[in-house]
Amino acid sequence: MNATITVTPGHFDTQETRAPSEREADLLARLPNLLHLAQQAPGWADILRGIDPASITSRAALAQLPVTRKSDFKEMQANLNPFGGLNCTSARELTRIFMSPGPIFDPQGRRADWAGFARALHALGARPGHLIQNCFSYHFTPGAFMVEAGAAKLGCTVLPAGSGQSEMQVTAMHRLRPEIYAGTPSFLKIILEHAQQMRLNVSSLQYALVSGEALPASLRQLLNDYGVRQVLQVYGLADVGCVAYESATDGVVNPGLVLNEDLLIEIVRPGTGDVLPDGEVGEVLVTSFNPDYPLLRFGTGDLSAVLPGQSSCGRTNVRLRGWLGRADQTTKVRGMFVQPQQVAEIVARHRQILKARLVVSGSVGNDDMVLHCEVAQPLSDGEIAQITGTMRDVSKLRGSVQSCAPGSLPNDGIVIEDSRDYG
Amino acid sequence: MNATITVTPGHFDTQETRAPSEREADLLARLPNLLHLAQQAPGWADILRGIDPASITSRAALAQLPVTRKSDFKEMQANLNPFGGLNCTSARELTRIFMSPGPIFDPQGRRADWAGFARALHALGARPGHLIQNCFSYHFTPGAFMVEAGAAKLGCTVLPAGSGQSEMQVTAMHRLRPEIYAGTPSFLKIILEHAQQMRLNVSSLQYALVSGEALPASLRQLLNDYGVRQVLQVYGLADVGCVAYESATDGVVNPGLVLNEDLLIEIVRPGTGDVLPDGEVGEVLVTSFNPDYPLLRFGTGDLSAVLPGQSSCGRTNVRLRGWLGRADQTTKVRGMFVQPQQVAEIVARHRQILKARLVVSGSVGNDDMVLHCEVAQPLSDGEIAQITGTMRDVSKLRGSVQSCAPGSLPNDGIVIEDSRDYG
Repeated sequence: MNATITVTPGHFDTQETRAPSEREADLLARLPNLLHLAQQAPGWADILRGIDPASITSRAALAQLPVTRKSDFKEMQANLNPFGGLNCTSARELTRIFMSPGPIFDPQGRRADWAGFARALHALGARPGHLIQNCFSYHFTPGAFMVEAGAAKLGCTVLPAGSGQSEMQVTAMHRLRPEIYAGTPSFLKIILEHAQQMRLNVSSLQYALVSGEALPASLRQLLNDYGVRQVLQVYGLADVGCVAYESATDGVVNPGLVLNEDLLIEIVRPGTGDVLPDGEVGEVLVTSFNPDYPLLRFGTGDLSAVLPGQSSCGRTNVRLRGWLGRADQTTKVRGMFVQPQQVAEIVARHRQILKARLVVSGSVGNDDMVLHCEVAQPLSDGEIAQITGTMRDVSKLRGSVQSCAPGSLPNDGIVIEDSRDYG
Repeated sequence: MNATITVTPGHFDTQETRAPSEREADLLARLPNLLHLAQQAPGWADILRGIDPASITSRAALAQLPVTRKSDFKEMQANLNPFGGLNCTSARELTRIFMSPGPIFDPQGRRADWAGFARALHALGARPGHLIQNCFSYHFTPGAFMVEAGAAKLGCTVLPAGSGQSEMQVTAMHRLRPEIYAGTPSFLKIILEHAQQMRLNVSSLQYALVSGEALPASLRQLLNDYGVRQVLQVYGLADVGCVAYESATDGVVNPGLVLNEDLLIEIVRPGTGDVLPDGEVGEVLVTSFNPDYPLLRFGTGDLSAVLPGQSSCGRTNVRLRGWLGRADQTTKVRGMFVQPQQVAEIVARHRQILKARLVVSGSVGNDDMVLHCEVAQPLSDGEIAQITGTMRDVSKLRGSVQSCAPGSLPNDGIVIEDSRDYG
C-alpha cells in the first residue's frame, strides 16, 4: 500500500471508496493480463482457445467469453487432476490444497489474505488486537483458512475452534474473551444458549461474521438480543474467497452485500452466458483476478441480483441482494432431464419470445409442462405450433405454450419452475 | 541463516551436526538472556524472584531454579488468565491461542516454524514440493498447526485433513497423492485399511510422522507392509512444540529420539528438581528458548531417560529413550493423597537413604504401604522407627520401611508403585 494514501475512517483502504467508474476502468484494464496469465494453464488455454487477450477490455467483450460452471468442476478435475488445469501455480507450490464435497479441489497460494476476507472482517469491526473465535471447520474445506488469512492481514489473533464441541466453545469464549465470532449463525446460537445454561459470561463477544447458511432476520435479532451487537453476513465461495459482504452504518445493517475488490461480477440468465440488466435475478458469474487460480466468467450456480444505488457505508462497489436460490434448475420430466440451457435454446430460436419460464406441474409420472412466454403481441396459433415443435426437438418432451405480457413473469431467476406435488 | 554455511546432506542445517560441547556452550550462554526476558512476565517474575540472570550460566546453576510443572498450569492459568503470566508476548499480539483439555491454554507467536517441527519433518524425509496430508486435529489443540509451520518452513504443501472422515481421507490421498502423512499411527492404519477396502491406490504415501500415542513395533511394521516405508515418531508437547524426534539411516530407524535444537533437557527424580545421572529414568524437564513463551525447567510430567552415545544419523544432540510413563504418580491411600514430592521429602530427611520407592499393595480400603529404601548398610530398628515416624508426619499415613541394596530398585522412574488389586 502506498504510504501517502489517506484511509477513510471505517474503511479498509481507499480502494473501497473510489469512484465506481475508476474501479470499473481499473478492472477492465487488467483483463488482458488476466487472460494472458490464464492461457498459460492448460484448462484455460482450452476454454479460451483462439481468444486474443488484448481484445478483452470491455464488459461487452467479456460477455463473449464462455461461462465455466462450478457444476462442471468435478468432471474437469477428474480429467485433469487436481484443478482441471485451471491453476496457474502448480499444486506443489501452493500453501494448501482443500477438498470440498464432490470432491472438488481448491488451491491456496502463498499471497497474504489470498481469499480477501480482510475487508469483510474490517467492515464487521475487526481491528488489530482483536481475538476471533473461528468456528468454521478447518478440516478439508477452506472457510476457516480464509478467515485466518484475513485475520493475519488485520493483525487479529485467532482461536482455531472449529465447528463442534459446544461446551469447550463456551469455556474458551468465557476464558479468552474474544470480540469476534466467525462461523455459521446457527452454531453461534447453540454456543450462546449453552453459555446461558452453564451460567458463564461471554459478553466479550460483540461481532459475528456469519456464513454457510441463511440468516433469517429473526435469528439475527436473537443473536443481537444475546448481546452480539453486530452480526454481518459474508458470501464466500471455496473457489473465489469472499465475493461480497454486509456492512453497517451506526450499528444498522445496510441493505445488500458489497462486492469485494478485485472481482468482476455479471448476472446472467440461468443456463446461458447472457448478461441481464441490473436488478434482474440470475446466476452470479465471477471473474476473479487471483493469480494462482484465475477464474473467467465462473458460474457459481447461485442466484442473485444487483441492488441499485450505493451503500450508505461509503463503499462504492456494486451490491448484491444476497443468495436467492440455486441457478441450476435442472429437473427430470417423464424420465428425461430438462435443463435451463434448453429453455434458453428455445427462446433463442424464436425472436418474438422476450423471456420464458417453463412450469412443470401435476405429479411425478403425470407431469404437465407449460412454457410461459413473455411476448409483445399474443402468439398466433401458428407461432404456438412452431414453438411447441421446437420444445419437442430440444427436450424430447411434449409440452404446451402460453403467451403472457412483457414483465408479467416474476423476477426470481427461475427458468424452470417445478411445482409438482411430491406428497 | 548464514549463506556461507555448508549444510550436511540429509540434515536440516549444520546446527544438528555441531560438536555437543559447542551446542552446550551456546545454550548455557543464552540462559542469562532467557531469564532476563522471562522475568518481564509476571508469572516468571514471581517464580524467579531474587534470581540474578547473569549467574545462571551452568547446568549446576540451572538445577537450582525451581521446577514449574505442567500439572500446576490449570490453576496458574485460572489465577492469571490465560497463560499464568508466563508469556512474554501479550495474548493479543499472538497469531493463535490454543486450548487443550483441562483447560490449558497455549500461545503461538509470529515466528516462522515456532514449534520447531521443520527438523522432525526434514529428518523424516520431507522436502520442498512434497504434499503433507495433515491428520492432526486443527480444532482447539496446536498439533496440526505445529506441522503446518514446519511444512511452511520446508516449502511443503499441506492438505488440512483433520482427524476424522476416513473415506474422505482415502479419496483425498488417492487423488492428491501426498508423499507424507502426519497424525496418529492408529488413524493411518484405519485410512490404509479403508483404501484397501475401497480398492483405491494410495501408494504415493512414503513417509509418516506419527505422534499422540504409542507406536508398538508391530504397528510400525504393519504400516511399512502397507507401503509406507518410513514411519518416525515425534515427541511433541503443546507448550514446547517438538521436543525430540526419531531419525533413520538408510531406511533403518535409529534408537532413541534426537533432542530438538534450542532446548535444554534435564531428567529429574519425580516430584523433585534433583537431576539424575544420564541413563536413569525420571521426569523430563524442558528449558525452552521460545521468546514468546519461555519455559524454565518445565516439568512435562513425562518419564524418560537419556540414551548414552550418539545417533548414527549424524545428529549430535542428546537422545531420549522415548515415553516411559507418567511422572505424576500421585495416588490415594485410605482417602489421603500420596505424592512423589512426599517420598522425596522423606528421603531428604534421612541422609542414609540413597533412593526410595513407595509400594502400595493390598486392595483399596485395605491398603498396605511399604517404603523400600536403598541403603549402603541395612537400617537398624532405631533408624526404621525414625523413618516410619517421618512417613507418618509427611503423609499422615502409617506404613512400614524395608532396607534393600544399592541398585536393587528398578530403573523405571517409579517413585510410587501402585500394585493394588482393583479387580
